Amino acid sequence: MSIIGHLINGESHNDYTRSQDVYNPSTGQVASQVALADKTTVEQAISAAQQAFPAWRDTPVAKRAQIMFRYKTLLEENAERICELVGQQHGKIVHDAMGELTRGIENVEYACAAPEVLKGEHSRNVGPGIDSWSEFQALGVVAGITPFNFPVMVPMWMFPMALMCGNSFVLKPSERDPSATMLIAELLHQAGLPAGVFNVVNGDKEAVDTLLTDPRVAAVSFVGSTPIAEYIYSTATANGKRCQALGGAKNHAIIMPDADLDNAVNSLLGAAFGSSGERCMALSVAVAVGDEIADRLVDGLTQQMQNLKVGAYSDKENDFGPLISAEQRDKVEMYISSAEADGATVVVDGRNTQVAGYPDGFYVGGTLIDHVTETMKAYQEEIFGPVLCVVRVDSMEQGMQLINKHQFGNGTCLYTRDGEAARYFSDNIQVGMVGINIPLPVPVSYHSFGGWKRSLFGDLHAYGPDAVRFYTKRKTITQRWPSASVREGVNFSFPS
Amino acid sequence: MSIIGHLINGESHNDYTRSQDVYNPSTGQVASQVALADKTTVEQAISAAQQAFPAWRDTPVAKRAQIMFRYKTLLEENAERICELVGQQHGKIVHDAMGELTRGIENVEYACAAPEVLKGEHSRNVGPGIDSWSEFQALGVVAGITPFNFPVMVPMWMFPMALMCGNSFVLKPSERDPSATMLIAELLHQAGLPAGVFNVVNGDKEAVDTLLTDPRVAAVSFVGSTPIAEYIYSTATANGKRCQALGGAKNHAIIMPDADLDNAVNSLLGAAFGSSGERCMALSVAVAVGDEIADRLVDGLTQQMQNLKVGAYSDKENDFGPLISAEQRDKVEMYISSAEADGATVVVDGRNTQVAGYPDGFYVGGTLIDHVTETMKAYQEEIFGPVLCVVRVDSMEQGMQLINKHQFGNGTCLYTRDGEAARYFSDNIQVGMVGINIPLPVPVSYHSFGGWKRSLFGDLHAYGPDAVRFYTKRKTITQRWPSASVREGVNFSFPS
Amino acid sequence: MSIIGHLINGESHNDYTRSQDVYNPSTGQVASQVALADKTTVEQAISAAQQAFPAWRDTPVAKRAQIMFRYKTLLEENAERICELVGQQHGKIVHDAMGELTRGIENVEYACAAPEVLKGEHSRNVGPGIDSWSEFQALGVVAGITPFNFPVMVPMWMFPMALMCGNSFVLKPSERDPSATMLIAELLHQAGLPAGVFNVVNGDKEAVDTLLTDPRVAAVSFVGSTPIAEYIYSTATANGKRCQALGGAKNHAIIMPDADLDNAVNSLLGAAFGSSGERCMALSVAVAVGDEIADRLVDGLTQQMQNLKVGAYSDKENDFGPLISAEQRDKVEMYISSAEADGATVVVDGRNTQVAGYPDGFYVGGTLIDHVTETMKAYQEEIFGPVLCVVRVDSMEQGMQLINKHQFGNGTCLYTRDGEAARYFSDNIQVGMVGINIPLPVPVSYHSFGGWKRSLFGDLHAYGPDAVRFYTKRKTITQRWPSASVREGVNFSFPS
Amino acid sequence: MSIIGHLINGESHNDYTRSQDVYNPSTGQVASQVALADKTTVEQAISAAQQAFPAWRDTPVAKRAQIMFRYKTLLEENAERICELVGQQHGKIVHDAMGELTRGIENVEYACAAPEVLKGEHSRNVGPGIDSWSEFQALGVVAGITPFNFPVMVPMWMFPMALMCGNSFVLKPSERDPSATMLIAELLHQAGLPAGVFNVVNGDKEAVDTLLTDPRVAAVSFVGSTPIAEYIYSTATANGKRCQALGGAKNHAIIMPDADLDNAVNSLLGAAFGSSGERCMALSVAVAVGDEIADRLVDGLTQQMQNLKVGAYSDKENDFGPLISAEQRDKVEMYISSAEADGATVVVDGRNTQVAGYPDGFYVGGTLIDHVTETMKAYQEEIFGPVLCVVRVDSMEQGMQLINKHQFGNGTCLYTRDGEAARYFSDNIQVGMVGINIPLPVPVSYHSFGGWKRSLFGDLHAYGPDAVRFYTKRKTITQRWPSASVREGVNFSFPS
Repeated sequence: MSIIGHLINGESHNDYTRSQDVYNPSTGQVASQVALADKTTVEQAISAAQQAFPAWRDTPVAKRAQIMFRYKTLLEENAERICELVGQQHGKIVHDAMGELTRGIENVEYACAAPEVLKGEHSRNVGPGIDSWSEFQALGVVAGITPFNFPVMVPMWMFPMALMCGNSFVLKPSERDPSATMLIAELLHQAGLPAGVFNVVNGDKEAVDTLLTDPRVAAVSFVGSTPIAEYIYSTATANGKRCQALGGAKNHAIIMPDADLDNAVNSLLGAAFGSSGERCMALSVAVAVGDEIADRLVDGLTQQMQNLKVGAYSDKENDFGPLISAEQRDKVEMYISSAEADGATVVVDGRNTQVAGYPDGFYVGGTLIDHVTETMKAYQEEIFGPVLCVVRVDSMEQGMQLINKHQFGNGTCLYTRDGEAARYFSDNIQVGMVGINIPLPVPVSYHSFGGWKRSLFGDLHAYGPDAVRFYTKRKTITQRWPSASVREGVNFSFPS
Repeated sequence: MSIIGHLINGESHNDYTRSQDVYNPSTGQVASQVALADKTTVEQAISAAQQAFPAWRDTPVAKRAQIMFRYKTLLEENAERICELVGQQHGKIVHDAMGELTRGIENVEYACAAPEVLKGEHSRNVGPGIDSWSEFQALGVVAGITPFNFPVMVPMWMFPMALMCGNSFVLKPSERDPSATMLIAELLHQAGLPAGVFNVVNGDKEAVDTLLTDPRVAAVSFVGSTPIAEYIYSTATANGKRCQALGGAKNHAIIMPDADLDNAVNSLLGAAFGSSGERCMALSVAVAVGDEIADRLVDGLTQQMQNLKVGAYSDKENDFGPLISAEQRDKVEMYISSAEADGATVVVDGRNTQVAGYPDGFYVGGTLIDHVTETMKAYQEEIFGPVLCVVRVDSMEQGMQLINKHQFGNGTCLYTRDGEAARYFSDNIQVGMVGINIPLPVPVSYHSFGGWKRSLFGDLHAYGPDAVRFYTKRKTITQRWPSASVREGVNFSFPS
Repeated sequence: MSIIGHLINGESHNDYTRSQDVYNPSTGQVASQVALADKTTVEQAISAAQQAFPAWRDTPVAKRAQIMFRYKTLLEENAERICELVGQQHGKIVHDAMGELTRGIENVEYACAAPEVLKGEHSRNVGPGIDSWSEFQALGVVAGITPFNFPVMVPMWMFPMALMCGNSFVLKPSERDPSATMLIAELLHQAGLPAGVFNVVNGDKEAVDTLLTDPRVAAVSFVGSTPIAEYIYSTATANGKRCQALGGAKNHAIIMPDADLDNAVNSLLGAAFGSSGERCMALSVAVAVGDEIADRLVDGLTQQMQNLKVGAYSDKENDFGPLISAEQRDKVEMYISSAEADGATVVVDGRNTQVAGYPDGFYVGGTLIDHVTETMKAYQEEIFGPVLCVVRVDSMEQGMQLINKHQFGNGTCLYTRDGEAARYFSDNIQVGMVGINIPLPVPVSYHSFGGWKRSLFGDLHAYGPDAVRFYTKRKTITQRWPSASVREGVNFSFPS
Repeated sequence: MSIIGHLINGESHNDYTRSQDVYNPSTGQVASQVALADKTTVEQAISAAQQAFPAWRDTPVAKRAQIMFRYKTLLEENAERICELVGQQHGKIVHDAMGELTRGIENVEYACAAPEVLKGEHSRNVGPGIDSWSEFQALGVVAGITPFNFPVMVPMWMFPMALMCGNSFVLKPSERDPSATMLIAELLHQAGLPAGVFNVVNGDKEAVDTLLTDPRVAAVSFVGSTPIAEYIYSTATANGKRCQALGGAKNHAIIMPDADLDNAVNSLLGAAFGSSGERCMALSVAVAVGDEIADRLVDGLTQQMQNLKVGAYSDKENDFGPLISAEQRDKVEMYISSAEADGATVVVDGRNTQVAGYPDGFYVGGTLIDHVTETMKAYQEEIFGPVLCVVRVDSMEQGMQLINKHQFGNGTCLYTRDGEAARYFSDNIQVGMVGINIPLPVPVSYHSFGGWKRSLFGDLHAYGPDAVRFYTKRKTITQRWPSASVREGVNFSFPS
């Protein structure tokens, strides 16, 4: 069985003492092994990054950007290979993997704009004959720790801009589906990146803890669940680092009585069940204002859900694939059962789904649960599965209070035609990413991604303009030249 | 003896169970008492801030800014009163207090530009018919914890912009010299600030810890010593807050052989001894490149130091005043003695200084120590007194290595006439604020203040543009309107 | 009878060979005389500006801004005097003059942000060891030529930011109502502006042509009618200057069937009749979509117009005052008559209005004309009087085509509740300033003012961020330092 | 003989009534014919652009940018073909053409950042419940008129960003060397640009005048000589268009006594003689401060110039090639002779240069003229040939006065090691592009290009951030939603 190792200083690194199974979730079989880096291996990666840093930092940014331009082309040329690997190890359908990759490439495109976005601020004459300017300089070695659900896109939220800012990087991707990540790392070197500037270590808590505590790591970006995000944030900061840690979500859509219902139903389907709901931006709660719209919504969804196809990643006809693991499948089914036990109505039930030809795959079918209420466990926690809960409220205000009271504040959506409602909602909702008639309001790559409340720890969001600030530190120079020397012909002979 | 209380919800709050002496350092006498807030009192302040927040947040920023415009005028009109209070309790000479106040007012001026600097980013057509924009919204209740050495300026680094961003604020100033801070807080209300938006609690660790742990506080700004900064940063972040914590410094100037020596000597005097060196931007180490320039520098400084006058805050003829406390005086003298014991040469000795008429004041005279080396305690630690150490090196590179190896990276300066040296220095030095022929390179209010390494924990600097980002969170709205309704005359009757 | 002279080099300048009557439009009487500057006088003003320029340009911007802060306070303190002068010579009611002044002061406030908005762009390492930055430097002497309808506000669109950018200025205000302008010029000097930096010349075409052709004038800002704007733009540019020339308008509001009609009626009243419609942002055409809303709109307006009070500027109970001149009154009445002759319905007729006690004032009452069509002269041309034309269309698209075909493109408004309609309108309408449910969408001072098509000639709008670009020129410095000299100890003795 | 036609609506267009010879300057032979578009042909191009505009404008900018990414790759793949065509028709050596192309591609790279640089400004709550934002919308059809000396680069200063801003474009390149321009136009379509969005017409004054007067053209960018730039600027603006017109230059370098002379000599060689001096940024005047440095400079240059090789474009060993035409060759020789006649010393004489094998090529050798003075014709006018004039002055101030008095203000350079001199120079010199130890301070693509005085007419510079402003117009939307409707459950049934 093949072993997936590390990429350190531009070279494969396959020694290991511990390893872990990597599954093909569509079949439920173990497909390969991934090496788990111990402290020493991670330290080697950090050392490689540290040694590569000075020359890379001093490479003009426009020259660094040439690598990103080439990288975009290489990613496009290798799209199928990348998506195949994503599908094999993550389980998402190939077209969904392609969507992920496209979003990732958009971050590469934004990184190509580094010469523009890295500009500092210059002030002439802050005092008589005194100039001052601020530069945004590289931090040094920075680290990224990324989740299984977007093995390509989430790393690309981080390293393209981190590198363009002049940093070197150590990435610890998810140990569940590392192969696509390894491939995009290789392509980056193929695009011309010098050895050591970008390193990948696979691993588990030992690797993570090494990155969090090694004094040579200046900053840590993390995306994952909220408990781990909290741990990352408090540990990294206790070690004096800057840190941004993105956690979980429970994204609500409010459907107003005046909504374009066809649009709402159709777009909710993709938002709730796409990628089996294993997205931090998945829309998992539909809040209907009034029973009339609620009934029509549930009817509409139920009808459309008949056509949803769940199955292996490789069949493009499928709408979504298996969950990442047997444990995750069981957990999702447990949440469905708990809702049922708590009094909710399971309108469409995805439990015990069987996919022909894939008896051991980790499948759960699309599930619709009506009459969910605030106190249910299935409402309060992130399920991370293909489950859409419907909550019924009497007014928009009541729906907004639900959202504002929830521990998470990642994404949300309002379905309406009314300008006033949209403005009131977007202004007052305690959520970082807001959609109006858009259920997955993932910001484009030239804006930034981040939730509020317990969905993000730190003060700068991921990718986009905020990434430039996160991956650089400000240096302010104030300059005054003393009395004229060569200009007025004095002091020519000093200091002989 | 008068008691200095708190300002909560626009009102004086003088109840207390614990209090502490406030000295007049010029005389060495206790002049008043300051109340030390317990947890309950701090929580009242937080509650007041929380209740005032929604209305303040929804006040248009241009209207909020009117208060800042009036505040600037009021501060100018009350400048003498403010500076008198600073002098009494801190000890700095009145003209120095005026300099501090002016720098503070410049931050008020920058806060007047809030309508400009709070602008979000708008993108039309991120997709077909889809618009997206990012707003910078207020955080809620934010807290500031400020040091004794700038009782007026450092709070003004924080609250003017924090308030203009729509936040409400709880300030815990230094308990050593709170009266000037209380006065500027009153003037802010006189300028029209609604009650509860800005609150001041005096106190010690109990107050600080309440601010760091109360879940209603969204962000903490701190300026003080590095050990406390680390505590603040790790505690605030462990409680899920954003935090910027500015710590100590050991600011070096390198004097090159081609420097304009008169300029260097004169500007170093103020930079080293102004405010008795109790500034995080004080220039405390002069690194001379070559013995020739070192000898001339020491001669020049020694000569000029004969004219330095130390004495009570109230006499404008004095150059600097006492230290903040007897303990601080003793500590500074200890550092001088340790350098002497370690083999350095005390060229000008400020120990055991007597000021006529003020036998009990906490005075240390200006002190110049030559032949200081890297291993001495007086070199490694922040002295925070009127002590200038001279280190001799053979090359600029050697001087830069000293700086880059030091734990702190706040400010630094290069004295030279040479463009290449200046560029090399400012590019490669591991310090956040760099002066070229400017020994106190404090950024102007429209840039931002912050050191590197153990001088600042967090990713955004104080005041200026970074303050806008620190005191706001990004919200990104993505908006799409469904099929035409009223525009094309369809669905007029929906949803009746 | 008093003579209104010029302000040159900080001093009154009352010599003149030609002069012109200045009326009090409320009484219809001549109240004073204004001197008309000849070429020589204008050249003196330009010379004064030119001489004052170098020192002013080199004054740090933060110091220049102190004058603006003081100026704001002085304008507020002198508000009543200023508004009284506006009322006397222009005729607008005092509360309307106060609104004008407030809008003017907002531009002063924005000018206080000059240190921020003048920041240049800095790029480290555009090549190895090469830095590049762009500064926005002052132009030199710039000129403003302003209209009678906003004798205070429109000059303040120009000179505060022009001065803060480091330019000196020559203003030629309207010769109809110069006194308020002269007063705000005096206050500017009282605020501390050095003599010669700001100069005012009253005059007519001779003065204008001198400003347009003198090679020492670097830029010209103009606001007035379109034919003159065209003349100014082509003449100034033919003389090699940069120029922005704002002209006339015909601002339409479309009222959709779903509009909040009470809001529409109430806000249209002020937008159409405020300041007698002598505003380039006056809303002069209401386009009703469908006869049902048209009838309700006309009814609502007719009813509310019964309460409109026209009269002398000094009575705060009045809603609006006289027109600027007898000629303008006659012209407005001519337009009303022509519409009537062309077949439109004069629903409310303001012709031959008599105001008790002011038999000779230049009054026209609020006028509502229904069934106006595209081919009528009253539709095609700017009336600049208290006349609201109603055009009836069958669809929003038809209304938008009307607007897009019109020669002017200054302001416009859509009344609707529908998000889709608002977005479609704001995206596709060929107008520079768009209101959604806001009939006078004058941008706030931190955005910029400007129309499209024949409403503005030039590429940068007035005030706000665009003004910074208009009043500065970009200088880009690219800097590289040759081989190390003093840093590596070589060439110390060069060039002795 | 082949005919070079036009590219209209994505198709070749080879009809013509008039044509003109296109030379190979290296051989002096006519190589092909270029069609000269008449008014009708240009109007067809404008029509095509106008029809393509709406769909292109509504294509999301990120999608438009994909074409630019592909275009960069195609340009790199076709670099040799492009450079060969430049060499054939312009005469510059292939490596020089490659430099030109690279600079052009950098503008394509910057255009890839369009999603970032097109962001508008968003302000929440400019008043209670009122939001305002400014968008930068496309102008419509814009035109570019470009010179012979950079047939690839200068068009790329214009159309990549103009297109990314959503405009359609009509380019009229130089009729002297149109083939490379035609090729890059074809590649642009190969990259996916829709037909009609970009059109090329070859022609002379008739074509130019059509572009300047057709009301459908919204903006004109021009690069060429100053007399033509003036004509373009005054004509385009008189027709109501926005215009930026870049003209001629006379770029001075001041060599200070402390300059690194080796660096100065070496870099001046390329800056003066590269591309035969046919560059608006060519360094044509060396101002030496003091006779000592002047003598050493002239000696150094004379020595190095022995190695300069002039010859046909195709030999990479050559340093520079022929002039564009026999007339230009004669004109350059006339300037050399006039300087000689005026008393200057022709130290190295490039007149009557013979290149083996190319007896009829339009060659002038590198020429160095010492003792040039301010009154000489060769000093006052732009020569546009491989001629470097040396002027001797006694002080830097005198050198700066020379520069500041000259009619042109395009580029300039100071050679020095002294920080104070560099700052004084860059601050006070009346030139738009300033080099410190960089003789060709062409701004990188992410800054903007433009001279001062008679080197540029208009207010926005070419390419970089200014291009974004030039190729867009600001639209400011102010939005308020009336009383709550659907949100509070009222008016649901309106307007049935």
